[in-house]
Amino acid sequence: MYSMKSIGIIQSVFHDTKTAARQARIDGRPGKLILDEKYMEGLSGLEDFSHIIVLYCFHEQTEVRLRARPLFDKKKSYGIFASRFPSRPNHIGLSVLALQKIDGNVLYCEDVDPLSGTPILDIKPYVKHFDCVSKSKCGWYENVDWDNIYP
Amino acid sequence: MYSMKSIGIIQSVFHDTKTAARQARIDGRPGKLILDEKYMEGLSGLEDFSHIIVLYCFHEQTEVRLRARPLFDKKKSYGIFASRFPSRPNHIGLSVLALQKIDGNVLYCEDVDPLSGTPILDIKPYVKHFDCVSKSKCGWYENVDWDNIYP
Repeated sequence: MYSMKSIGIIQSVFHDTKTAARQARIDGRPGKLILDEKYMEGLSGLEDFSHIIVLYCFHEQTEVRLRARPLFDKKKSYGIFASRFPSRPNHIGLSVLALQKIDGNVLYCEDVDPLSGTPILDIKPYVKHFDCVSKSKCGWYENVDWDNIYP
Repeated sequence: MYSMKSIGIIQSVFHDTKTAARQARIDGRPGKLILDEKYMEGLSGLEDFSHIIVLYCFHEQTEVRLRARPLFDKKKSYGIFASRFPSRPNHIGLSVLALQKIDGNVLYCEDVDPLSGTPILDIKPYVKHFDCVSKSKCGWYENVDWDNIYP
């Protein structure tokens, strides 16, 4: 077992799992990452990045399911590792967020999707040389009608 | 504190931090993700994806530093959150890997960079609609000479 600690808190407009956003870049809204002040030195240089990867704990998630009906395709179930659904063996979420500005220990971001109060586990710079694969084949997500995702 | 468990092990050609790869898509090599068999059902549907995001524990990392000299620019130090260096408050690593095939509980991948024996925390499908930001501004990484990264 590995112990992970919260290094800060996400503030978003989403307060309820039923009405929360499904994915940062799809239906996220402006929000803030409030880093614990003792980690502030770790932000040095991050102001020159347009995007970040935030890792967080799905703290309201208690169950583990190996198959789930994802939010973008409720008709079928898929293996949990073929989906971003939260009921994973380790309740870690990942969002790519657009970083607007940093003010002290506060990161102002667009497209924030986690629930407000979500504990932050890590912030990484988004590096297109490592993280951007434009020609990737994305399984069942290829068939999602992104313009009409609301049920 | 949040407890995370290993859900499998990465097998790679790298057995020593001193000679290990620095980033999956830069100097990774073919390798395998061996998922614990009890989680195998969770892979259903993942075979239709060309890329995955693997989260893992930097299990040989013991220290936390808020500033580090990253492997791609040893001349300067940056905040840990502006770098992918392992000495983070939570020792979680992230790699985007090309998935070649899945055979039972074994995922054959290209470009595997973690040390062999690294514990896996999560496997997520790479979804370009969420994860690919081709026009991102990548801070100090923009100045790395990717064709001449070996010191």
